[in-house]
Amino acid sequence: MLPDLIMDRARKMNCFFLNRHRLDSCKPLIIEDFQVGLITPEVMRQLQEFPDVFVCSEASVQLHPSLNDYKTRSTAVEQVLNQLRKNDVFITLRGWRDECYEVRADISEPSLMRMERAATCLFGIRQFGVDINGYVNHPELGLSLWMQRRSQSKPRWGGKLDNVVGGGLSVGFTVEETAHKEAMEEAGIPEYILKNLQPVGNVMIFFESERGLSPNTEFVYDLEFPVDFVPENQDGEVESFHLVPIKDVLPIVLSDEFKTTSLPVVLDFLVRHGVIDTESDPELGLLSELLHIPLGYFYRRATLGAGPGVPPPPLLPPPLVACMQPAADAEPEDK
Amino acid sequence: MLPDLIMDRARKMNCFFLNRHRLDSCKPLIIEDFQVGLITPEVMRQLQEFPDVFVCSEASVQLHPSLNDYKTRSTAVEQVLNQLRKNDVFITLRGWRDECYEVRADISEPSLMRMERAATCLFGIRQFGVDINGYVNHPELGLSLWMQRRSQSKPRWGGKLDNVVGGGLSVGFTVEETAHKEAMEEAGIPEYILKNLQPVGNVMIFFESERGLSPNTEFVYDLEFPVDFVPENQDGEVESFHLVPIKDVLPIVLSDEFKTTSLPVVLDFLVRHGVIDTESDPELGLLSELLHIPLGYFYRRATLGAGPGVPPPPLLPPPLVACMQPAADAEPEDK
Repeated sequence: MLPDLIMDRARKMNCFFLNRHRLDSCKPLIIEDFQVGLITPEVMRQLQEFPDVFVCSEASVQLHPSLNDYKTRSTAVEQVLNQLRKNDVFITLRGWRDECYEVRADISEPSLMRMERAATCLFGIRQFGVDINGYVNHPELGLSLWMQRRSQSKPRWGGKLDNVVGGGLSVGFTVEETAHKEAMEEAGIPEYILKNLQPVGNVMIFFESERGLSPNTEFVYDLEFPVDFVPENQDGEVESFHLVPIKDVLPIVLSDEFKTTSLPVVLDFLVRHGVIDTESDPELGLLSELLHIPLGYFYRRATLGAGPGVPPPPLLPPPLVACMQPAADAEPEDK
Repeated sequence: MLPDLIMDRARKMNCFFLNRHRLDSCKPLIIEDFQVGLITPEVMRQLQEFPDVFVCSEASVQLHPSLNDYKTRSTAVEQVLNQLRKNDVFITLRGWRDECYEVRADISEPSLMRMERAATCLFGIRQFGVDINGYVNHPELGLSLWMQRRSQSKPRWGGKLDNVVGGGLSVGFTVEETAHKEAMEEAGIPEYILKNLQPVGNVMIFFESERGLSPNTEFVYDLEFPVDFVPENQDGEVESFHLVPIKDVLPIVLSDEFKTTSLPVVLDFLVRHGVIDTESDPELGLLSELLHIPLGYFYRRATLGAGPGVPPPPLLPPPLVACMQPAADAEPEDK
């Protein structure tokens, strides 16, 4: 039963990646030589109203070539977003955060502009985040994971259970800086514990909800907490913290109680720690794929050319995804 | 320098996956409702000589419908292979092993026939293997990895450095059984150490060499060895064992000394243990993708349909891979 649920959830997290029909109907968003986003037909219809900013064609949506630097682009797109917000055409813009994300083909590539966080999923901009698995080798409970319950007042996924620490990379912060900042703000983790922060890789999913596209890359850390350490929220964004013995983790994270887009980080933890293995779940191979969606397929990068100095491959429509299907009953994101 | 080399090698390991032109020219190999292989034009030309066994069309290569069970298929294909071997048309059949692999769309799917190990890469059959990272927390050297040097007489990659234990899943063995069998045969690891074997996930690559296609899935285990334990080969397939301090691991495994197709397992170990992280290697996200190639794209499985009882999606040609390019200087496999 649980293995079926794991795969069901893994497909849900990747409902956009697995929906070929939807994928084929999107157009790449191009800035300079980079594909930085994916534009759905619904969003395209709105962008066509702003021909000075977005050049829409059969093949792609390009930022107008006259917008040729970071600042000019950021300002022009912000004006469009303000207009769209005023017109109230997109749910997602009601959650305006006044926090900006960088727009780039990959985290190793230059940022080409900044964009309001709430808008990034309209444009299919890659989102990068940091997550910490805070675990305890407890003398009675055994291996256990700390979880947070998000504050009811959070604009998204309010009241849901979540990883003990997690946050998106906003403008001006590196991955490691984000990890330290969020660990402090969300869970009050002091420096003497944080120095044991262990980077363990990353997970990628490609999710779609009624808000838009979420091509998420999460940089993952494991952090062993002292047995007597209790996380304490500092910024009002967490309601409570709970220590969960490892045997109870899967049923909880597979339930509707848990924030869907945080699930890959926990599943990856359970795979790396041998809780999910090929004996318990013969579909482990497929699960690994669904935790590492090849977002590089969709976001073309100059450095992926044949070598330094060699131009990147020509821009082409997104690849066909012929063979993997999402769960039939994909549910709305905030259910 | 090392980050560039890591990505260079990661692309080399996936030279088939990244070569769209090559990928587009292949046809799916179909048995029953499953795509179990990929047939290159060169192999197709040979299979057309055996119309009683292989039905070649524009869309696919199908095993003849009259071959309708495991035994009949295995026997018929073996006869074809014997003929091809006699004609000496494929280098890879010179390395005939008299060891069979199961032919299936995924390890969680039923096996549809068996096939001589040396032939699987002609048909692009998925290969499943097991690898153990044998590590030591050494009082002086710090974290260190045991490696083996393969016997000079091994038919492939003879004399190269390799993971301390690794082997393919042959007919009749599960993943865990293979791990135990290989640990005993290759490195003489006793049961009291093996009981600490920690499953940690899997890696997938899609490699092409002059021998054929290697869509490899490796099930990975970490195993901490006691400081005073020295591996001892039992089956004559290993020349020597070496304990390598972690700081020396990357330069060694990125050199030509190391078996290319074993590299993803080590890179995954280094990522999970924080030796490669996003500070040292900003392309970590892309590396994770290249260590988890979505082989499910290529090998269609009935269970990937919309749910139990729902038929699988129609068979379609392999997806386009539009955006990631292999290293320009892809080298022959056994160099």
